[in-house]
Amino acid sequence: MQTDSLNKQGVQSLAEGVVRRDPRSLGRALSLVENGGREETYELIRALYPHSGRAIVVGVTGSPGTGKSTLTYELARKLRETGLTVGIIAVDPTSPFSGGAVLGDRIRMQGLAGDPGVFIRSMATRGLMGGLSPATADAVLVLDAAGFDRILIETVGVGQDEVDIARTAHLTAVLLVPGMGDDIQSIKAGVMEIADLFVINKSDLPGADKTRLEVESLLLMRSESLSEQIPIVKTVATTGEGIDRLLSTLEELQSRMEGTRRMEEAEIQRARRRIMELLRERVIRAVLRGIPPEHFQELVEQVRRRSTDPVSGVEELLGRTQFKGIV
Amino acid sequence: MQTDSLNKQGVQSLAEGVVRRDPRSLGRALSLVENGGREETYELIRALYPHSGRAIVVGVTGSPGTGKSTLTYELARKLRETGLTVGIIAVDPTSPFSGGAVLGDRIRMQGLAGDPGVFIRSMATRGLMGGLSPATADAVLVLDAAGFDRILIETVGVGQDEVDIARTAHLTAVLLVPGMGDDIQSIKAGVMEIADLFVINKSDLPGADKTRLEVESLLLMRSESLSEQIPIVKTVATTGEGIDRLLSTLEELQSRMEGTRRMEEAEIQRARRRIMELLRERVIRAVLRGIPPEHFQELVEQVRRRSTDPVSGVEELLGRTQFKGIV
Repeated sequence: MQTDSLNKQGVQSLAEGVVRRDPRSLGRALSLVENGGREETYELIRALYPHSGRAIVVGVTGSPGTGKSTLTYELARKLRETGLTVGIIAVDPTSPFSGGAVLGDRIRMQGLAGDPGVFIRSMATRGLMGGLSPATADAVLVLDAAGFDRILIETVGVGQDEVDIARTAHLTAVLLVPGMGDDIQSIKAGVMEIADLFVINKSDLPGADKTRLEVESLLLMRSESLSEQIPIVKTVATTGEGIDRLLSTLEELQSRMEGTRRMEEAEIQRARRRIMELLRERVIRAVLRGIPPEHFQELVEQVRRRSTDPVSGVEELLGRTQFKGIV
Repeated sequence: MQTDSLNKQGVQSLAEGVVRRDPRSLGRALSLVENGGREETYELIRALYPHSGRAIVVGVTGSPGTGKSTLTYELARKLRETGLTVGIIAVDPTSPFSGGAVLGDRIRMQGLAGDPGVFIRSMATRGLMGGLSPATADAVLVLDAAGFDRILIETVGVGQDEVDIARTAHLTAVLLVPGMGDDIQSIKAGVMEIADLFVINKSDLPGADKTRLEVESLLLMRSESLSEQIPIVKTVATTGEGIDRLLSTLEELQSRMEGTRRMEEAEIQRARRRIMELLRERVIRAVLRGIPPEHFQELVEQVRRRSTDPVSGVEELLGRTQFKGIV
């Protein structure tokens, strides 16, 4: 996405627009953080940070075909009914919010489009300068500073990237559908650890109870203490069935977590991760600025021809910069 | 995975063991690159690099349930029949190679276990120090230097990480199964661009022809020139049906690519990516060494309490290191 270059004052007024929840400013700010790693992005983060920290962020994750988008849509609709404002970030390439999926879904989603209390943004999932996870964290910052009460992040629950994104959320709901044995397997492997609750969507399909039992037995193996209960909620997102219960479960989990040691720990981890990401980004930019493109090209060619190895090459490259001796 | 610290000489003899294709050395070298970002890893890359560049690397990617592992297994078996040696890297958490999946699959896979011409390694998909994609690239380097003729990388084809891994391969086969409309959608969004060929596995299921048509129409939309044909191969991995054709298609694609501008471009991109990854890793390590842990902790706490923003904090942090003024 193209964004014009902004001076410090321009960023300041953009930040003010975000805090006013002006849709154009929101769109522009989100494009800025999506591009990442530039002076304006840093300025914007700086300006918005003091306004953030109020939104509750909920991750909705699951394999393609589990009905994440429909569920996210229904959640948003219910939240609006209770008067809360909602920001949606779709990081799922198959999401109708992102322009994937079939026409019918996309038409349904448009039901939210006219409402100023809802802002929907789909993130590019590829080719982001600074990586998907930092960009998502900053997009959350923008919507949070804009005063949205709840922020829903829709992701495909496979891969490290997605797990990282889930960690941006305060609570993560993992969606399953009946009869997907493979999914239960992949949960075992990783997603399990990020789930604060499980949703068995499409629970009108045969096998919903079997899926529930499988999840329960996995939870039994995992849970360190019996007191730590992870809820399982059955829904049929297409009819809205179970969404009320899902919402009240989410709110209950949130209030139960409030002020606990675990909540504090999660906040610390989030801060740590963001600092690390910025540190990384900042330093690598400085290094790349210090390396003439022709030196870089030359090394690429040498490594390709195997006349040098990448480790020795990088060392030599750094030796010709201001980082010589300190890296 | 634990690896003892190695001195330069130790790394040298480990590298020799790898080149000799000694299983213990291979296992140890792979653990080393999986841990990543350490002096020994760099030494090992340096030592192995001159021995690499001969293997043909094939990525096998697709959603959970498309039968990637069974197909990979059958491919490996056929390759062995032709006398070629095979390395397998399973980055798929649901792969039976990785210990996921059901017992039956795992028992079948053991058929390869006794054969010294096959080496199977499953990569941890989480918590890797340097990231999944660099670790996979280095694992390929190890197996390549060990002289395996073909290296098969099995990944789940969703997410940026997986796309990056696919780029490590010379050729990438994207698996589909009949009747997964959602999959076609997610292909649209990204995986499409990395596919050198499509495999419609489980093609004995109803809907295989429909899936083929869908892929063909997607290809028609994409292809810049009519000359660029992307093959579609139908298989039933569980019975071995179509595997011969898949293999000959792969070999044909490979020989067609040999020496072309596109091949060269891919090699350049691979070299560039590896250099960037190493540069990043190296610099960030140096920076972190320069920051006292207590300064870091302090900043995390300030960011968490929002008494500072992460951008200003990182600036201040760097200002206290040897990087002051140059980053």
